[in-house]
Amino acid sequence: MTYTAPITEQRFVLETIADLPGLAQLPRFEAATADLVDAILEEAGKLSAGVFAPLNRIGDTEGAKLANGVVTLPAGFREAYAAYVEGGWMTLGADPAWGGQGLPFALATAVQEQTTSANMALSLCPMLSQGAIEALTAHGSEDQKQTYLTKIISGEWTGTMNLTEPQAGTDVGALRTVATPAEDGTWRIKGSKIFITWGEHDVADNIIHLVLARTPGSPKGTKGISLFIVPKFLVNADGSLGARNDLRCVSIEHKLGIHSSPTCTMSYGDNDDCVGYMIGGENAGMRAMFTMMNHARINVGLQGVSIAERAYQHALAYAKERVQVRRIIEFPDVRRMLMTMRGLTEAARALTYLNAAAVDRAHAEVDELARREAQALADLLTPVTKAFSTDIGVEVASLGVQIFGGMGFIEETGAAQHYRDARIAPIYEGTNGIQAMDLVGRKLPQARWKSLFSDMRADFALLLGETAGLAPYLEDALAALESATTWLAEGSGDDNAAGATPYLRMFGLTVGGWLLAKQASAATQRLNAGEGDPAFLKAKIVTARFFAEQFLPQAAALLGPVTRGAETLFAIPDESL
Amino acid sequence: MTYTAPITEQRFVLETIADLPGLAQLPRFEAATADLVDAILEEAGKLSAGVFAPLNRIGDTEGAKLANGVVTLPAGFREAYAAYVEGGWMTLGADPAWGGQGLPFALATAVQEQTTSANMALSLCPMLSQGAIEALTAHGSEDQKQTYLTKIISGEWTGTMNLTEPQAGTDVGALRTVATPAEDGTWRIKGSKIFITWGEHDVADNIIHLVLARTPGSPKGTKGISLFIVPKFLVNADGSLGARNDLRCVSIEHKLGIHSSPTCTMSYGDNDDCVGYMIGGENAGMRAMFTMMNHARINVGLQGVSIAERAYQHALAYAKERVQVRRIIEFPDVRRMLMTMRGLTEAARALTYLNAAAVDRAHAEVDELARREAQALADLLTPVTKAFSTDIGVEVASLGVQIFGGMGFIEETGAAQHYRDARIAPIYEGTNGIQAMDLVGRKLPQARWKSLFSDMRADFALLLGETAGLAPYLEDALAALESATTWLAEGSGDDNAAGATPYLRMFGLTVGGWLLAKQASAATQRLNAGEGDPAFLKAKIVTARFFAEQFLPQAAALLGPVTRGAETLFAIPDESL
Repeated sequence: MTYTAPITEQRFVLETIADLPGLAQLPRFEAATADLVDAILEEAGKLSAGVFAPLNRIGDTEGAKLANGVVTLPAGFREAYAAYVEGGWMTLGADPAWGGQGLPFALATAVQEQTTSANMALSLCPMLSQGAIEALTAHGSEDQKQTYLTKIISGEWTGTMNLTEPQAGTDVGALRTVATPAEDGTWRIKGSKIFITWGEHDVADNIIHLVLARTPGSPKGTKGISLFIVPKFLVNADGSLGARNDLRCVSIEHKLGIHSSPTCTMSYGDNDDCVGYMIGGENAGMRAMFTMMNHARINVGLQGVSIAERAYQHALAYAKERVQVRRIIEFPDVRRMLMTMRGLTEAARALTYLNAAAVDRAHAEVDELARREAQALADLLTPVTKAFSTDIGVEVASLGVQIFGGMGFIEETGAAQHYRDARIAPIYEGTNGIQAMDLVGRKLPQARWKSLFSDMRADFALLLGETAGLAPYLEDALAALESATTWLAEGSGDDNAAGATPYLRMFGLTVGGWLLAKQASAATQRLNAGEGDPAFLKAKIVTARFFAEQFLPQAAALLGPVTRGAETLFAIPDESL
Repeated sequence: MTYTAPITEQRFVLETIADLPGLAQLPRFEAATADLVDAILEEAGKLSAGVFAPLNRIGDTEGAKLANGVVTLPAGFREAYAAYVEGGWMTLGADPAWGGQGLPFALATAVQEQTTSANMALSLCPMLSQGAIEALTAHGSEDQKQTYLTKIISGEWTGTMNLTEPQAGTDVGALRTVATPAEDGTWRIKGSKIFITWGEHDVADNIIHLVLARTPGSPKGTKGISLFIVPKFLVNADGSLGARNDLRCVSIEHKLGIHSSPTCTMSYGDNDDCVGYMIGGENAGMRAMFTMMNHARINVGLQGVSIAERAYQHALAYAKERVQVRRIIEFPDVRRMLMTMRGLTEAARALTYLNAAAVDRAHAEVDELARREAQALADLLTPVTKAFSTDIGVEVASLGVQIFGGMGFIEETGAAQHYRDARIAPIYEGTNGIQAMDLVGRKLPQARWKSLFSDMRADFALLLGETAGLAPYLEDALAALESATTWLAEGSGDDNAAGATPYLRMFGLTVGGWLLAKQASAATQRLNAGEGDPAFLKAKIVTARFFAEQFLPQAAALLGPVTRGAETLFAIPDESL
């Protein structure tokens, strides 16, 4: 089961959807020339295919192991992570002031897609570091940046996010970990955290935990939460590693998938001597947490894309080779499954890259209005990227199992691992239900959807030639989406919440269909101009058509389900369910 | 994680959908009085909840183990199976001439739903025996029935189905196992079979393998296949066990789920001394195989219902208890997931019971025309029961994981086991793609859908009072289904095959919506008459409404996807996929 980075596809989406050439015109991203982008995608593809992918199965079968507070990963993981650090991959999107390359997040996203397709569990390690990088870059002091941020950006140390406690999952405000001030201006942390991804491991020399905790006398709920740097090893003034801090991994979870991503229960301050350093001021923890989590949500959406891509490549190879009377790829129903996998994956990829590019523009646009517009688009798309892409990740992985038939249920085949690994992504970083509520409750009121929908409609009018046939499907879906949006904009409360999940689905499908149509349109132009690989470009046009024919009618049909309100949902009393 | 047999629901569906009271009017099923039905459901519920369910998790964690050709099950499995035999549960639907109770298959289906919800892996053992019972009852000689059938019906011995070989999965005609005539009229079997469910185990004293093989000089393909009884232990003239036959289990699979259902690779005749007995005449094996498989397909569909019911009960209990600010069952999105699980499960149950009852009528109706009509209905519904119910089994189990949030991904919770166990059902006994082809290619041409659709429409006109609001949804869905059916009836080949899977889905959803509406209508009548449990009956009406509002629009929207033909599917050449 090999993996090949889909570089032609990635470059095409970066160009036509993320407008990477446009980003490279902005002063901040001048370095992102076409040549550099090509080189990065090629090199990352080699690391992913050659180093990360071969460890995916052993990571699943052996998994992370805990003994005496030490978590060990299967053979090869330490070396693979070292190769990642060696290649400077952690530095890609980070701030040049602290050792980063300052390249677009959209490009880093394409790279991360590859490593995650190759080995989702291992790729979670740098993904968590990235959250720590964001938080420290935005909220850390100069000292903290010098001491911790530079080392996490280089990849020498890794970072974690410590939010969840047994009684406080989605309800973060219920957390109980406490931070007490020490005389030297540092803090003493005490408490327990669960579900800490890569909370303990042996692939890097130090782990910088970012921990949410309450200070004495802080307000109740989310307003009284602060964020702390809590290193596994304390750091001496010269930057060398000092004493072991009073924190430990007390257990790791036995999970459905991503077995080589250690999910730790962490205990801080068992001996009342766990040193922490506050980031970003007292009671400002939620703001810092959202900084960590907003990119994390896009990154988790990307995991859906990545696992879908891997499952598709895997199933496609089997379908080409497996003979049942004839090669099974020749059967319409197998072809339908493959095209479904392909269409959903490409739609989710385009959505995710567009979202990442909006984040880039929110930082890099010269004009403030343009930055704000881009931020609003990034905010609007983020819950859709997270939930839609991870939902289709599960669906595509399940279709992959189906294409393998009986062999798909046998673990050695590897299709089952994708199905198991994919299942976490709709859950963590805010369940997909939470994303849907975020979209409907927080993002729609910002009204950025209005100009998005206008842009979409303007693009539909530009569909010419072979792609003109897509327009009626797209217009139907968008009309339904607009009706649903208007209904939600006028509504509130439980009635809106009741429709949130199907609304997010219709949003994702419609935007996905639009982005595929945009690509089909660009492909047509290139074909007419005699540029690019004709086979790839023709496939783009077909995939857009397949998606429009098969998925957009379903998007339109969700208008009713979205707008039924909550009455039926609650018409059966709890005790009669 | 307890299980409670949903007896009120099962009895209601048996009465209103399977028309069990009507079946009990037929001479063959006179014994199936209301009192007996109640007693059976109650007793089976006790066995399922008290004996089978507690072994479900240990079955998953320990699984079946193979050593020296012997497969052992976890502690408790032998005793649980013995309790099943002791209770006479295997005899329920079997022919009284050979020790069966001759009760309706619909009733046996309700019982099997319970045992499968409680422990899917263990319940596969009697499920496979049931296939052997069907084949032997229909095609065995008097001697064979006396020797083998009676023992399988009693449950003392179990049965297996040996079809698949490495090169012959869906393409059964490619099998290579050979049967050579011996001088005494018996046969010598030689060959290898894979994916043999419960092919070897320690819960019963003998295993009767039914093996497909080719005789010398037989025609190629499926026309040259014969069926053989191949016992693990040969049987002496007095019925006692004799010598060990020359067959063995060489390996068992390491699977995604149903870990305590041993999936065996069987080797027959390593020492050229594997004795087999032909059933049903030379080259008549495919006919006998279809006898085994037709009920097996309904039974596998039932597995979808069973796992969905278990996942629903499990998630519901958690949603009532888990607090995130408030109990999560009070959140509309969690409620939507629970109602989705409930609606899909009840629709699939009704479909499956209706299908089982049609099988009963095909055997028991006094009038030949009525028998033929019922057989045609059973044939039409079987692929829908198998594929729709197993697809929703996976969807519902996945929603169950989602309701548990992060805990759902932790194996100890048990939700992940349902998600893993459920995944086999869309694959075995003919993949769901094969079912869709069977529906479109074989069943639609028999035109039984015409009277089914007429019956449905007639029922819609009878929806009064609170259920009248369902009619527009149902009529829209049925109109779309009829259009799709007409399109398929006039079409053929790849274009029909391309639409088969979405067609089966729209068929399942529309029939499901109809059967829920029928139940809502019956519930209304009982409420008006002051009969039955009002809370249960009111819930029935709400579930039908939820299903109509949320799922029937999606069914109608599949008309386009069904009727697009195969052109887009094949527009990308293999090498560009």
